[in-house]
Amino acid sequence: MLGNDYADQTCSIARSLEVVGERWTILILRDLFLGVDRFDALVASLGVTRTVLARRLAHLVDEGVVEKRRYSERPERFSYHPTAKGRELMGVIALLMQWGDRHYPHPAGPPRLLLHRGCGGGADDHLTCDRCGTRLQPEDIDAPLNPALAAG
Amino acid sequence: MLGNDYADQTCSIARSLEVVGERWTILILRDLFLGVDRFDALVASLGVTRTVLARRLAHLVDEGVVEKRRYSERPERFSYHPTAKGRELMGVIALLMQWGDRHYPHPAGPPRLLLHRGCGGGADDHLTCDRCGTRLQPEDIDAPLNPALAAG
Repeated sequence: MLGNDYADQTCSIARSLEVVGERWTILILRDLFLGVDRFDALVASLGVTRTVLARRLAHLVDEGVVEKRRYSERPERFSYHPTAKGRELMGVIALLMQWGDRHYPHPAGPPRLLLHRGCGGGADDHLTCDRCGTRLQPEDIDAPLNPALAAG
Repeated sequence: MLGNDYADQTCSIARSLEVVGERWTILILRDLFLGVDRFDALVASLGVTRTVLARRLAHLVDEGVVEKRRYSERPERFSYHPTAKGRELMGVIALLMQWGDRHYPHPAGPPRLLLHRGCGGGADDHLTCDRCGTRLQPEDIDAPLNPALAAG
């Protein structure tokens, strides 16, 4: 029996979901990847309650997925940034985004593009640049708003 | 505000999570990919309640991610199989598994291997065969138990 968590399972997926499987966590990581890095901005972007967001962020910091940085002393304020371990989840999020784009398409096209930074090619379903063939790493990927959608 | 679901977000990740973001869904898909395809076997494998499993499976069937097949008429019994749309999530699950293997390693090595069927090479972090370079599709990937772990 799993009971309330998956920790007793000898399964790397189950153990990953212990860290990033909660309801909001993937969307928090999405926002952090996009540069939404302050608590109040995350609340506004996600519509999550402050209590839930604080709990999720604390868990991600404890697990070394997110780093907390103080950007103001008075009042004390923090921003949040994916660590290298956290950035490795970019691929999971990119594939989930592509799957959503294929099966739940927005009429005007994908809300965001996944582009090879500096090249402008797109990230394909193997996280490889469809223009130059580079195997993309998290830091190589830009995810700008689709201009077609922004115009609409 | 998101309220209780993500459906109002113009975001393909949020829309994907509407379908596959619930607590058990990724683990249900993992089991279906591994060939655990009957209701009672899924209950035993996951330790999920029958009520929750029935609800999650019904949602996946409604969304076209899983197909329900009757394998017995008396008593009426069904098995569950990923559709083509569902199989496309294999990449998300494979990357999540690799992330767990890297950051929450089992002492004896990864619980399961991701192998290129018929070749025996491993799937790398771009879902490409590390032996022959093939860009792997879901149907190309085997996920056997790691013999090292099975022996332990």
